[in-house]
Amino acid sequence: MQFEDLNWMQVENYLKSDDRVMLVLGACEQHGYLSLLTDVKIPLALAQTASQKSGVLLAPPVNFGCSPYFLDYPGTISLRLHTYLDVVEELLRSLYGAGFRRVLILNGHGGNTPVKTHLVELVNELTDLNLRWHAWWTSDTLFTIAKKHNLDPEHANWLEAFEFTKVSPLPADSKSTPYPPASILNKTDTRKYYNDGSFGGSYEVDSAIMQEIFDASLEDVMELLRFE
Amino acid sequence: MQFEDLNWMQVENYLKSDDRVMLVLGACEQHGYLSLLTDVKIPLALAQTASQKSGVLLAPPVNFGCSPYFLDYPGTISLRLHTYLDVVEELLRSLYGAGFRRVLILNGHGGNTPVKTHLVELVNELTDLNLRWHAWWTSDTLFTIAKKHNLDPEHANWLEAFEFTKVSPLPADSKSTPYPPASILNKTDTRKYYNDGSFGGSYEVDSAIMQEIFDASLEDVMELLRFE
Amino acid sequence: MQFEDLNWMQVENYLKSDDRVMLVLGACEQHGYLSLLTDVKIPLALAQTASQKSGVLLAPPVNFGCSPYFLDYPGTISLRLHTYLDVVEELLRSLYGAGFRRVLILNGHGGNTPVKTHLVELVNELTDLNLRWHAWWTSDTLFTIAKKHNLDPEHANWLEAFEFTKVSPLPADSKSTPYPPASILNKTDTRKYYNDGSFGGSYEVDSAIMQEIFDASLEDVMELLRFE
Amino acid sequence: MQFEDLNWMQVENYLKSDDRVMLVLGACEQHGYLSLLTDVKIPLALAQTASQKSGVLLAPPVNFGCSPYFLDYPGTISLRLHTYLDVVEELLRSLYGAGFRRVLILNGHGGNTPVKTHLVELVNELTDLNLRWHAWWTSDTLFTIAKKHNLDPEHANWLEAFEFTKVSPLPADSKSTPYPPASILNKTDTRKYYNDGSFGGSYEVDSAIMQEIFDASLEDVMELLRFE
Amino acid sequence: MQFEDLNWMQVENYLKSDDRVMLVLGACEQHGYLSLLTDVKIPLALAQTASQKSGVLLAPPVNFGCSPYFLDYPGTISLRLHTYLDVVEELLRSLYGAGFRRVLILNGHGGNTPVKTHLVELVNELTDLNLRWHAWWTSDTLFTIAKKHNLDPEHANWLEAFEFTKVSPLPADSKSTPYPPASILNKTDTRKYYNDGSFGGSYEVDSAIMQEIFDASLEDVMELLRFE
Amino acid sequence: MQFEDLNWMQVENYLKSDDRVMLVLGACEQHGYLSLLTDVKIPLALAQTASQKSGVLLAPPVNFGCSPYFLDYPGTISLRLHTYLDVVEELLRSLYGAGFRRVLILNGHGGNTPVKTHLVELVNELTDLNLRWHAWWTSDTLFTIAKKHNLDPEHANWLEAFEFTKVSPLPADSKSTPYPPASILNKTDTRKYYNDGSFGGSYEVDSAIMQEIFDASLEDVMELLRFE
Repeated sequence: MQFEDLNWMQVENYLKSDDRVMLVLGACEQHGYLSLLTDVKIPLALAQTASQKSGVLLAPPVNFGCSPYFLDYPGTISLRLHTYLDVVEELLRSLYGAGFRRVLILNGHGGNTPVKTHLVELVNELTDLNLRWHAWWTSDTLFTIAKKHNLDPEHANWLEAFEFTKVSPLPADSKSTPYPPASILNKTDTRKYYNDGSFGGSYEVDSAIMQEIFDASLEDVMELLRFE
Repeated sequence: MQFEDLNWMQVENYLKSDDRVMLVLGACEQHGYLSLLTDVKIPLALAQTASQKSGVLLAPPVNFGCSPYFLDYPGTISLRLHTYLDVVEELLRSLYGAGFRRVLILNGHGGNTPVKTHLVELVNELTDLNLRWHAWWTSDTLFTIAKKHNLDPEHANWLEAFEFTKVSPLPADSKSTPYPPASILNKTDTRKYYNDGSFGGSYEVDSAIMQEIFDASLEDVMELLRFE
Repeated sequence: MQFEDLNWMQVENYLKSDDRVMLVLGACEQHGYLSLLTDVKIPLALAQTASQKSGVLLAPPVNFGCSPYFLDYPGTISLRLHTYLDVVEELLRSLYGAGFRRVLILNGHGGNTPVKTHLVELVNELTDLNLRWHAWWTSDTLFTIAKKHNLDPEHANWLEAFEFTKVSPLPADSKSTPYPPASILNKTDTRKYYNDGSFGGSYEVDSAIMQEIFDASLEDVMELLRFE
Repeated sequence: MQFEDLNWMQVENYLKSDDRVMLVLGACEQHGYLSLLTDVKIPLALAQTASQKSGVLLAPPVNFGCSPYFLDYPGTISLRLHTYLDVVEELLRSLYGAGFRRVLILNGHGGNTPVKTHLVELVNELTDLNLRWHAWWTSDTLFTIAKKHNLDPEHANWLEAFEFTKVSPLPADSKSTPYPPASILNKTDTRKYYNDGSFGGSYEVDSAIMQEIFDASLEDVMELLRFE
Repeated sequence: MQFEDLNWMQVENYLKSDDRVMLVLGACEQHGYLSLLTDVKIPLALAQTASQKSGVLLAPPVNFGCSPYFLDYPGTISLRLHTYLDVVEELLRSLYGAGFRRVLILNGHGGNTPVKTHLVELVNELTDLNLRWHAWWTSDTLFTIAKKHNLDPEHANWLEAFEFTKVSPLPADSKSTPYPPASILNKTDTRKYYNDGSFGGSYEVDSAIMQEIFDASLEDVMELLRFE
Repeated sequence: MQFEDLNWMQVENYLKSDDRVMLVLGACEQHGYLSLLTDVKIPLALAQTASQKSGVLLAPPVNFGCSPYFLDYPGTISLRLHTYLDVVEELLRSLYGAGFRRVLILNGHGGNTPVKTHLVELVNELTDLNLRWHAWWTSDTLFTIAKKHNLDPEHANWLEAFEFTKVSPLPADSKSTPYPPASILNKTDTRKYYNDGSFGGSYEVDSAIMQEIFDASLEDVMELLRFE
């Protein structure tokens, strides 16, 4: 039930009985040893599974986000925040125009969070738009699991090392977490600061933990899709 | 050799010996009976094959384009032209910042053509950026093949009916091509005008012709990638 | 019946019985040996004659367009595409606000074509605005005449060499047409590529041919003004 | 010596010995009984004469300005202030890019005055651009003449009633000047307030006075063109 | 009756019986020997007194304005004109949204004047918004007093030297007024031109005159607040 | 050592021996029973005290922020996020242009947080700008104190009820904290959801606790001002 597998008549038909849709916001940015598309792949995997289980439509992912701090890591592609605000707003306006009224945004990238503030301006105008924003790695569900296993979730560490985000072998040791910088780092200093790009901790953990996390995150999404 | 299968270290390594990259611009819009993502799928298929054959890197596709005329067909998601100009510019700035100097844009959607004019402003500034823009369906190669088979290439007719863009059975008959409207149609009138969304002619043709077209289009891309 | 020869009371009076108006979009850019205002002068001449014959009002011309590629030729004055989209939109909003409902845009410059896409966004909003866009040099009428005389129409060649666009003697010989460049040229390379600025072919042809072209182009305009 | 009578080679040649140029900013707006293009025609007439006398080049006029208050008078065509700031900036960037370093802006319309503030931002960047802004009706020269003849200069009264701005007979009587409104009027209230559009006083005066004003205004322009 | 001394319930209560509010626009820019906030302090002092006398609410001041010409004087903080237009528009939209319908803008800085033109666009949309713009130093009241005392009002001279704007001793002598420059000065030339930043004349005058001016200016504000 | 108490010569003198400055970002928005300017008053009080103790300059506060969700509470004045990004960027550019190189932003309002992402784009350009962002209510210091006293810090509850933010009596009881909404609320629903505007918990606590918090928060600021 992804847009890519449908034509417009099928979407029109769907809208006769449902008005829900999921939209994935990601990023194309350094994730240490992991795929540059990690922030797309994780929410997209969750969304695809949730779509199969719930029948809720899934729009094409936005493959880019706001990652100005990582621009000195080759392969990072970043939109200016100004532009990104407009992009997300306009995608939502198109979906709203077609008749979708309940939209679950599955955001995979922390740098996209400012969009949430902008979307308040949008729902102030489109008052019957029920808009939800979910960032899978910020849910209580996840923190509980991480704590249980005595793990710190961080950018580009074990947290994001699913089988489908790995593109090369990962270091066996763990990285000591750098102390958070007190100033807003520019792209050059960010690379000096984080070196390989991981924010520290173990690079990967047992696949059973990753499955546990995926399953719990999926349940979060399924719950949000109920729009209760 | 797609960004999604690479991490930043691998891109950095690639840049030591090559500075070429492909970027696919698509659209999410009605294509009659074909997939809403037809304009992504075709240039992406060409780019993936060309990447395998040439080793040239392929950035993630832009899944959206400018399709204001089709907004009354559900499933169409359109960016404003203003926004789209900025999106493409900023993606290119990121790639340029990483060291890419020869970029082949594979555009799958006619509505995105205005970006070309904007990109002149960009190359006026980034004077050592070698930027190519290719719209597969506008090449002489294609017209020659279409003419040979006595076929008219049009939006959402046989021209775009590859196996990988079909999502439902196609009508067996052909559609009489409507006379082009003299005024700039708004979205409501556009839907009235084109009904099922195809711009006319046969809905599909023999798969051998489609293979001939794909192969010839691929050769166009391979030639452009030589940057001679 | 041009705005410059009227006051507001006269326009108000006109609007009681007609709601048509013409708007000329031009450019101030190199045209080889021809006037820098060639792209204004040609559609303006057509519009003035059509206005006299039809009584349809003619708004003041936009003397500038998008010509970023020609900025290394002195005398070229170019607006950014972003700005030009807004300019044309706002002129149309003013005309619409006054009561004009049928507008024929006579565009004289290829670089302005992206505006057409933007205007779809406008007619999506102003649904009772009947907006037509005409670029005289792209009409079938013209191609037929050019073909009949075995001539290739190109930027700044014979095609635009009317008596009223000539400002200096023209070369007697013809220029071999350069092969179209495969990359998007920046302004410096554009000047190197085109030298004197003409895109090739004869610099001028017999005045009878030019009259034939003008007359046929005028008939195109007259036909479009019927808004049928 | 207007751009419309020149090709790019002639401008390039001019720039070898001079770097001055004039740019006319006007408006297309109600002027009572006078031409809608009055604010273009007056500075353009001054500029054309000054160009003939001085040899300084004259760029094509900007036929539109900011006239939001007059939008209820048909025939008024107004750009948003945001857009107008960009338009003037970009025209100047083109001229600067070509090598012009001394630019005299001849503004014919009071509503365009905010651009002056924006141009300070431009000269902060282009530090060797000598930019002058002249609004003919605000010069001491003019006030002295008006006072001598016991006349009040106002929008669309005798002040602007040159032979070349008249498009219909003018009322023989004079209009009592309305007291300036204390609030910022919207377009509807503006029309109610000013009725025929003149801001009051005599509609026309003896042609000798108009000639005296034109001659004095021309001398202002000639003086400014010396850039001393 | 300033916003800072109220909570939202109190504002809501106020709106049941009145719909007037004052908004101060200032600047943070060089004022010679006077406070960098001079352009905030003066209209704010007037507004606070007027609020006490009239009971009309006073919104928080905008502490910044458009001062691009003074950017070479340290302590000057300037917004681009584009941004400032949006800032003032959006503040007014918020006030309007809350129910305020009569707004008196007390502007303290000449560089902010372009906003007035932009606000016409706003009242064209919000047709029941009664918006007044007052710049205390441009009133006839003030000119009459200055003339009576044979004083020239100028930026950063005696005119703005109230007790509450002084932050250091003032020169006892007076400064000869420089002749107004004929070109638009950039920030570097502006500083060279004005040296200490005053535009000339006496640096201070007798406090009785200042009181006379303050009282008269206050009466202007009180009169405008009647919205008659 | 606030800008309002200084002239430009004094700032220029300061810059000879120091390049630090503080900038307060606030909001004018509902804070339940507390002052509409609460988000300005708290960081400003901290900044003023820190300035006295450290001698570091303090720029004028930005009295407005992004509060689209609270626009149905009268007295809330909100800027669009797009505009706010530009405002903060431009203030910083002015300070940087004057020679300030270490800037501590003291943000008082959660809705302004998106600006941080935008500022990365700025430091990518101004690479020698050391920019710190501090939101007093998010520091570990504060959480420790709150926890010690078994208090939950929330918008418009005891956390912000300093003597200088109170403008009316506060309820003696406490408010049960509403469960966070799962959807992005529009302004109408936000008001329904939060009623009096407090996000729950006690409305005020013992003044000794408030002093403890202020002192600890001040120490945070003092530490950050060391720029180590």
